[in-house]
Amino acid sequence: MDKVNTYIKEHQQRFLDELFELLKIPSISADSRYKDDMLKTADLTKKFLIQAGLENVEICSTEGHPIVYGDKIIDKNLPTVLVYGHYDVQPPDPLELWDSEPFEPVIKETEIHPNGAIFARGASDDKGQFFMHVKAIEAMIENDSLPCNVKFMIEGEEEIGSEHLGTFIKENKEKLENDIILISDTTLAGKDIPSICVGLRGLSYVEIEVEGANRDMHSGIYGGAVPNPINVLSDMISGLIDDNGHINIPGFYDDVEELTEQERREMAKIPFDLEKYKKAIGIKDIQGEKGFSTNERTSIRPTLDVNGIWGGYTGEGAKTVIPSKAFAKISMRLVPHQNSEKISKLFKSYFEKIAPNSVRVNCQILHGGQPYVLPVTSPGYLAAKEAMTTTFGKEALPYRSGGSIPIVALFEEVLESKSVLMGFGLNSDVIHSPNENFGVDNFFKGIETIPYFYKYYSEKF
Amino acid sequence: MDKVNTYIKEHQQRFLDELFELLKIPSISADSRYKDDMLKTADLTKKFLIQAGLENVEICSTEGHPIVYGDKIIDKNLPTVLVYGHYDVQPPDPLELWDSEPFEPVIKETEIHPNGAIFARGASDDKGQFFMHVKAIEAMIENDSLPCNVKFMIEGEEEIGSEHLGTFIKENKEKLENDIILISDTTLAGKDIPSICVGLRGLSYVEIEVEGANRDMHSGIYGGAVPNPINVLSDMISGLIDDNGHINIPGFYDDVEELTEQERREMAKIPFDLEKYKKAIGIKDIQGEKGFSTNERTSIRPTLDVNGIWGGYTGEGAKTVIPSKAFAKISMRLVPHQNSEKISKLFKSYFEKIAPNSVRVNCQILHGGQPYVLPVTSPGYLAAKEAMTTTFGKEALPYRSGGSIPIVALFEEVLESKSVLMGFGLNSDVIHSPNENFGVDNFFKGIETIPYFYKYYSEKF
Repeated sequence: MDKVNTYIKEHQQRFLDELFELLKIPSISADSRYKDDMLKTADLTKKFLIQAGLENVEICSTEGHPIVYGDKIIDKNLPTVLVYGHYDVQPPDPLELWDSEPFEPVIKETEIHPNGAIFARGASDDKGQFFMHVKAIEAMIENDSLPCNVKFMIEGEEEIGSEHLGTFIKENKEKLENDIILISDTTLAGKDIPSICVGLRGLSYVEIEVEGANRDMHSGIYGGAVPNPINVLSDMISGLIDDNGHINIPGFYDDVEELTEQERREMAKIPFDLEKYKKAIGIKDIQGEKGFSTNERTSIRPTLDVNGIWGGYTGEGAKTVIPSKAFAKISMRLVPHQNSEKISKLFKSYFEKIAPNSVRVNCQILHGGQPYVLPVTSPGYLAAKEAMTTTFGKEALPYRSGGSIPIVALFEEVLESKSVLMGFGLNSDVIHSPNENFGVDNFFKGIETIPYFYKYYSEKF
Repeated sequence: MDKVNTYIKEHQQRFLDELFELLKIPSISADSRYKDDMLKTADLTKKFLIQAGLENVEICSTEGHPIVYGDKIIDKNLPTVLVYGHYDVQPPDPLELWDSEPFEPVIKETEIHPNGAIFARGASDDKGQFFMHVKAIEAMIENDSLPCNVKFMIEGEEEIGSEHLGTFIKENKEKLENDIILISDTTLAGKDIPSICVGLRGLSYVEIEVEGANRDMHSGIYGGAVPNPINVLSDMISGLIDDNGHINIPGFYDDVEELTEQERREMAKIPFDLEKYKKAIGIKDIQGEKGFSTNERTSIRPTLDVNGIWGGYTGEGAKTVIPSKAFAKISMRLVPHQNSEKISKLFKSYFEKIAPNSVRVNCQILHGGQPYVLPVTSPGYLAAKEAMTTTFGKEALPYRSGGSIPIVALFEEVLESKSVLMGFGLNSDVIHSPNENFGVDNFFKGIETIPYFYKYYSEKF
């Protein structure tokens, strides 16, 4: 690996210059005015894949933005790694909150990054991160050190829900065949904490309507004698979670994965400062399910949150109305091995059951996603752990994210392989927000770590 | 009284024609484009007061729309009745739901009114009703039958909160001095049910803000570990009322007037059809405080209703946010002898007390109004009861309205006299809505009944 490491060190400035080229194109997938820039970014991505030594590089059109593909098959008997990433970015608004132009990348020192961070939309999410893989592969191919096959699939619609990716992978199952999927689109648990995301929560999202009278009523004439849908909805929401933070829906916890004490201990090693946590988001106190730590509450435990509520008069001043209807949007984060469809149905039938006779309740299932887990005993996880442990010089830890990346569950379903979420971003990268940035150290740490992943993974396979 | 009755019968058509003149002017107090029409209506009202035989008739300017005043003092030793009414009307929108033009009055037969009802904005609320008094006084004066003194105060801002009436009555206490205030701006309990409104509920109206984190949070990253202001607000609202429909705020019921069994029996005589009630407003079932009938729940018992609630994402589709804040508007209807300021303060301190440590709560008292009761033993009530019993041919009953008319409490406070709410409208008049109407029979029944009120009140005084 010495040759690879030396190559990376010698070409640092060029790697940064090339990444800047990518960052300068406003590839905003959500905004149709940037369609040409999307194509330019796909073209440039194609150019870099070819430059890295990949073969069969092509721009695959979809009904939306295209997907860039490339591969390097050195031996069909060797394992194949599929690298997934995305070249599209979030819109940069609000522009006035950026300290520099979102599409004119600059390197600036920050408290967290004394060696500088790259400020630009997409620096961390995900141009900077997928580009680490391009450069790592280049370093391996140039130095005859690629130990297995590799395929790249870089899409352009991640920020808008990967609408056409599902069709693409279903239609290209053979082409995309692989043994493990490697993704850098997440964060480390902390700047100097080598860590791999091994779990994602799933989602069930419903919309509720509670209807009392067939029209808005005068609270003087009818108040006290008729159901008020807002009061009823509040009662029903309140009844969904008990005083211990436990969700009351029968069957809700039936399939929840119970972690071993060892795995909980392992996860608990990730440093956590409660006072800092509370201060950072300005909460007076934490709140959650009894018997679990904050990190457990946001990762290995399912939740129920009201994401929106509305009904009645919400303008200025006072209006004494009893509204006909009240509404809420409610989502549940799910953990392995809960099933999104099953949970949505359990919610619906429970919610309808607890409704008082006086109201009509309508519960619409809006959408969902399955939870995901990468076993800490799997070769993919072990290779990533060993790679990070090598480059960070201390033991890498597993952690679970509270969020959801629906495509990971989709990959597992369609391509029948696990994804390793080996991200090098930080929470402080403020992706999706103004002043998105990506540490220069993190960028090179990623390029340096990836070849070790290939090495250890091939050895374990 | 024969002469008076004969006079009324002989002039029916003219009375209707004159009312139509009033109804034709769009005196919409809420809309500044109708300022000239407001002045025209005040002028016409003045003309009718003079025509009725009143003296000292004048248009008193205020900082808003003017008040029309007139009186007839026949003997300072005799009692004085102050008639209150309003010449302004609600805006007629939505216009497309009217079957005839709102300011082109027509008489049409209806199921409830086989002898016809006057369809126009203001027919019942309140031009048609205050005009009954003008015509009744005319009939009495013309026939030398006015048994006491009378004063008229017809304002132009009732539909916009009587903003300048308070100042006017405070500055004109002597001029407005009276023994009893007579108002027709309410309804009968039913078409053939002689009935007098003897109670109005008061109001306490608050706005609530519950704040968790200092910004909107991602429900994946933070869900399960931080307070969700919507869930917290729902819990808190739910905790305000127990399973028996009883309000949990300590001290809330301390001052509530307990009616005698006899008074409850008297009120229970007013016919009530539960199935009809539910069907009319499309509710599956009634709901309210245990131990009280529907009519009692909406009249002699205090209530708590959420009038508006909002927070988080309320647009289309799904967004997985935990909002920083959630809001609600909450009003309580109060009964004699609850005090609006006291109840608002009790609410505020209880709401702050039940808030969990994890959130900040802000409770703003928006406004209030005192409840009102007219004792069924007072001369004013007894005169109204006897008058209605005479003209309807059956015993008149007391009832209480669930709504609030803040000026009635204000009259009591400033002018130190009770108001008799002897209205002749019906719930089916759909005041404030399209196709407002007022039964022709009701109009004449009012004109016929009012002279008896003066007769009996003078005798009792």
